[in-house]
Amino acid sequence: MGFESQIAQDQADQPHSLVLRFPAGQPLVLDSGAVLAPLTIAYQAYGLLNAERSNAVLICHALTGDQHVANAHPITGKPGWWETMVGPGKPIDTNRFYVLCANVLGGCMGTTGPASLDPATGRPYATDLPLVTIRDMVRAQAMLVDALGIETLFCVAGGSMGGMQVLEWASSFPHRVFAAMPLATATKHSAQNIAFNEVGRQAVMADPGWHGGRYREAGTRPDKGLGVARMAAHITYLSEPALQRKFGRKLQDRAAPTFSFDADFQIESYLRHQGSSFVERFDANSYLYLTRAMDYFDLAADHGGVLARAFLGTKTRFCVMSFTSDWLFPTADSRQIVHALNAAAASVSFVEIESDKGHDAFLLHEPEMLATARGFLESAARARGIA
Amino acid sequence: MGFESQIAQDQADQPHSLVLRFPAGQPLVLDSGAVLAPLTIAYQAYGLLNAERSNAVLICHALTGDQHVANAHPITGKPGWWETMVGPGKPIDTNRFYVLCANVLGGCMGTTGPASLDPATGRPYATDLPLVTIRDMVRAQAMLVDALGIETLFCVAGGSMGGMQVLEWASSFPHRVFAAMPLATATKHSAQNIAFNEVGRQAVMADPGWHGGRYREAGTRPDKGLGVARMAAHITYLSEPALQRKFGRKLQDRAAPTFSFDADFQIESYLRHQGSSFVERFDANSYLYLTRAMDYFDLAADHGGVLARAFLGTKTRFCVMSFTSDWLFPTADSRQIVHALNAAAASVSFVEIESDKGHDAFLLHEPEMLATARGFLESAARARGIA
Repeated sequence: MGFESQIAQDQADQPHSLVLRFPAGQPLVLDSGAVLAPLTIAYQAYGLLNAERSNAVLICHALTGDQHVANAHPITGKPGWWETMVGPGKPIDTNRFYVLCANVLGGCMGTTGPASLDPATGRPYATDLPLVTIRDMVRAQAMLVDALGIETLFCVAGGSMGGMQVLEWASSFPHRVFAAMPLATATKHSAQNIAFNEVGRQAVMADPGWHGGRYREAGTRPDKGLGVARMAAHITYLSEPALQRKFGRKLQDRAAPTFSFDADFQIESYLRHQGSSFVERFDANSYLYLTRAMDYFDLAADHGGVLARAFLGTKTRFCVMSFTSDWLFPTADSRQIVHALNAAAASVSFVEIESDKGHDAFLLHEPEMLATARGFLESAARARGIA
Repeated sequence: MGFESQIAQDQADQPHSLVLRFPAGQPLVLDSGAVLAPLTIAYQAYGLLNAERSNAVLICHALTGDQHVANAHPITGKPGWWETMVGPGKPIDTNRFYVLCANVLGGCMGTTGPASLDPATGRPYATDLPLVTIRDMVRAQAMLVDALGIETLFCVAGGSMGGMQVLEWASSFPHRVFAAMPLATATKHSAQNIAFNEVGRQAVMADPGWHGGRYREAGTRPDKGLGVARMAAHITYLSEPALQRKFGRKLQDRAAPTFSFDADFQIESYLRHQGSSFVERFDANSYLYLTRAMDYFDLAADHGGVLARAFLGTKTRFCVMSFTSDWLFPTADSRQIVHALNAAAASVSFVEIESDKGHDAFLLHEPEMLATARGFLESAARARGIA
């Protein structure tokens, strides 16, 4: 276990974050029926809550994201993952809004997850942690929001798995969400998305270092398996045209192929780097739990098979965005959301952003996305009476 | 090592096939500069060679295919992989044509590959086998064709990696190929295709059972890694719509999700089966070598960057086919072939087949593909004077 790996483990135990620890008497009842207690939530906050407590924005992070939206990451030192969107003067303006982001339930950056210690046994939960769902994540976030004395969130925003949480928030707690901004997301995973997630899980579980999930006690880490999982997933985050433009068949620091299994091509070198850097900051069991939560998410199924019922009578204003080259959550998925919202007579604006950056576009500097978010939030803030 | 695994190893050593063993004095000089000797080629033959020796059709198989085109597979017992296309009365009619298919160089069904014994050491080549290219495979096939006394092949046909060999045949030996039928293929791998192959290789090499390639001597097998590689690759062989239609979010023999990492969804169960059955019939090192050969293939680069030069002055008749839902070798790749052939003033017909079956469509019962192949071969046979 390297130095950085130890730091990653430390983040699960002692995160560089604000931390809210609920007493055992305030358990979280999960969709599976299991009861989780005590619950810890690690989160970050930016800006100031106004006197009316009306300017809180909750950011929901994606599968491999975390609560470090707009500050340097405690392990990698890299900028926050959504600094294009969140910060002073940014569309989600921390001079104006009180911005919260919690590490998701099942995560590995301080919120209760498989890397956390199971109080019943004193050893890590590992696979003893009950499976969690997107709705469970949202319920945990609601406990945080309650504890902070916030009744209604001005906005809930996020992309990918974060967008699933946004939709679940709007569905489960319609009166507590004034505005919702789900990006590059869907109300359920397709067979292909489940398939890619299953490849990732099998890669992790095939690694003998996984030890049935008990790698921390065994003193090993399934880094190779998790690296392969990340490599496969990373391909799905980028578009084929962007890969072709950026890498094509360019060779890595060499004039000709080496006739070996070295990373001759830049794309190979890039992917290997994605795999090896990921494992230093992420917990393999969390990867299993969170991909599973995404697979299980099916908002229509939770409402008798009729998606519009998830939003009946909602007063939330929605801003839905998709990206033309996103093949993990293609525009058709966003259109399903919009159709359901229309059927529920909700207020919804929808923008399909022209971009060749694939699914990851929502994390990047996409001017049309940023302008759309700015306009949507400006109008909503006026309606909400936020100065 | 299970019973079937032993059978797989036996196929590398003592294939259930016709076998041609070239003496050490007839070596194969590889693109890498290495020299391979002695060379063994395992192949299957169907039908009869006519007196003029003008009716030979060479089939080139894909990455995980083999020479068992139109007979039961010696390990799995399943029908040949292209019985839709090849057999009595089929488009490639074994009543009319003498049909050959050789296990590719680097394969694991009897042709010299990493599972073969290295005569210099008496142990398996493993990763001591020099890397082979698509052109090396074609050169080996040419040695077989020579040995059988065939000057000109009536047709060379194949899909995917087989299609790459077809193109290489037409380019390297234009006078020896009367007609060429490359299906669902490309003149080079895209960055995304290299990326998926690299994920597969890393999955194999991450498996401690791989032992740096020397698993046969170690008495282990990297089955888990190879299974993950196959699972990831298999997703790319199918289209998203077909996956959705066939599997969607259907559960596997259960009424509700189990809140576990079991294969709750049918797509998971299906993929796991694809992985576990593949490893019983395929050699992990072969998988590394053959994916590498595909990545290295770049017909334009071999001709000064101008693809049309690969076909200058060709008299071969081409029939190029692609499939609308193939995202591994999309129609744009076939159009590049057709444009180059047009620029080289070649005779070419091109059909894009409407199908939702993805890349694997070329292996399936696609009536338009079969009718097109039948018409093309009929016309070419008349021109060639084959009764």
